[in-house]
Amino acid sequence: MNLRSSRSTTPAELVRVHGATAETRDDALATEEPLEIRLLWGGDRKTTVAVTMRTPGADAELSLGFLFAEGVIRSASDVVALVAGDGSEPGGAEGEPNVVEVTLAPGIEPDLAPLDRHFFSNSACGVCGKAALEGLALRVERPAGSGPRVDPALIAALPDRLRAAQGLFDATGGLHAAALFDPEGRLLAVREDVGRHNALDKLVGASLRAGDLPWSERIVLVSGRSSYEILQKSLAAGAPIVCAVSAPSSLAVELATRFGVTLVGFLRGDRFNVYAGAGRLGLARAGSARLPIVSTPD
Amino acid sequence: MNLRSSRSTTPAELVRVHGATAETRDDALATEEPLEIRLLWGGDRKTTVAVTMRTPGADAELSLGFLFAEGVIRSASDVVALVAGDGSEPGGAEGEPNVVEVTLAPGIEPDLAPLDRHFFSNSACGVCGKAALEGLALRVERPAGSGPRVDPALIAALPDRLRAAQGLFDATGGLHAAALFDPEGRLLAVREDVGRHNALDKLVGASLRAGDLPWSERIVLVSGRSSYEILQKSLAAGAPIVCAVSAPSSLAVELATRFGVTLVGFLRGDRFNVYAGAGRLGLARAGSARLPIVSTPD
Repeated sequence: MNLRSSRSTTPAELVRVHGATAETRDDALATEEPLEIRLLWGGDRKTTVAVTMRTPGADAELSLGFLFAEGVIRSASDVVALVAGDGSEPGGAEGEPNVVEVTLAPGIEPDLAPLDRHFFSNSACGVCGKAALEGLALRVERPAGSGPRVDPALIAALPDRLRAAQGLFDATGGLHAAALFDPEGRLLAVREDVGRHNALDKLVGASLRAGDLPWSERIVLVSGRSSYEILQKSLAAGAPIVCAVSAPSSLAVELATRFGVTLVGFLRGDRFNVYAGAGRLGLARAGSARLPIVSTPD
Repeated sequence: MNLRSSRSTTPAELVRVHGATAETRDDALATEEPLEIRLLWGGDRKTTVAVTMRTPGADAELSLGFLFAEGVIRSASDVVALVAGDGSEPGGAEGEPNVVEVTLAPGIEPDLAPLDRHFFSNSACGVCGKAALEGLALRVERPAGSGPRVDPALIAALPDRLRAAQGLFDATGGLHAAALFDPEGRLLAVREDVGRHNALDKLVGASLRAGDLPWSERIVLVSGRSSYEILQKSLAAGAPIVCAVSAPSSLAVELATRFGVTLVGFLRGDRFNVYAGAGRLGLARAGSARLPIVSTPD
């Protein structure tokens, strides 16, 4: 058993749609979980310097690389002890899961100022546990299972409509997009950014101003992948259907399942996968092993 | 003149390589700049709640959407004033560039705890100005122009070598990868993660432990796009050549140019673009208009 590689992927059952056919499949998702990096120095000093959403599997290296890139450490000898809860460190499996504790060598005084950026910076981390999910649940008032029912062919048509409207992407090839559709597949708004989460924030902000929140009768489409952040923002806006052009993370699927959101991934041509909430598309519910449209052995 | 759309893209000159041919081209990059979101409330309270790397163009919407997703505001009426330095707000062009100030309605007391995450959280922001570049310059000791000279055909071969070695990507389709090569194109290490920056941190951390830093004779390849973060981490590790499968942001090109890094983008099949440091590949230097291999009018 390789603990690391087994934690790097998460098994999932999905509904794969290709044109008029749908079948359930077992698949693997990239695992997404928060990692807290703690720094210990000067005998009794200790602080959380970063919390990042990451794929488990090389937590010790991730922590060292992060501290090096930020200028906190300059060589491997600046670190005298490292405890990684993922077991990626020999003898380190006794640590807390999703926590790495890095102890600096005597005399190394870290400059923490550059660390006040990029990452979750509070040990009362917003994503590290059930409290965060409960907080989200309190704010997401839409009952699971509500929202529009939509034909799969309509979902398949969305990316072309986004591309037709997306100005900057064609010019630079470097921008992500977030788009809002109504249940008939009409494009209502598009926003672009180098970051998917920013494009989605812009879309939410535009709806907030236009009085078009919550998105209880809306379909969200993002370029690229869907992650914790994309689901968190879509949930806050009340969207029942979230589609992405690429793969979802494990945490995206977990949130979608938990909050009754229809989550579509790999939306390309007339194909897509449904990772949660397939019922809203008139398909077998992803995650239920007993209601396949077409069952395949693999 | 549309100020917003003109700021969303940045013109650039690059060298486009296709097999044995190379030509200079004018192109457009997605602009990447930091945005600071400040919150004002209770008459005299004021704090920076987020600094994010974004594409300018809808700063007011981005700020409102971010505050809504984080639960700070619940409706448009919670905001009584908004000044956006990008001119995206009517009458708001007098603000500081790359700053949005959001004033809450009387009686609205924000819960700032959930904001201590995800974003740069200090007003002494590490990426907002020249100070950050100077800080990076001090830490990057490798002289510009040093490092290996590499044949373009070797660069074109790197993605296939990465894919052959990349285990998880095939399984999930949802992971980014960062890979390290020597000047002969031999793959030395691969790390994967849902985030490109995490994959690169893991790669740096592995080299730190193995005593393989600085990367003065190394080639870095990342899946996806190259952004400020990718260049910042590569520079800290001393890499002279950074390649990405997709587009670079404007800030990635700016950092590469400033620090003499060879920056390759859209590396697919036998094609790629060189955005900076083309001399290291024996090509005309991207950014110099007078030394094209093949000059084309567009």
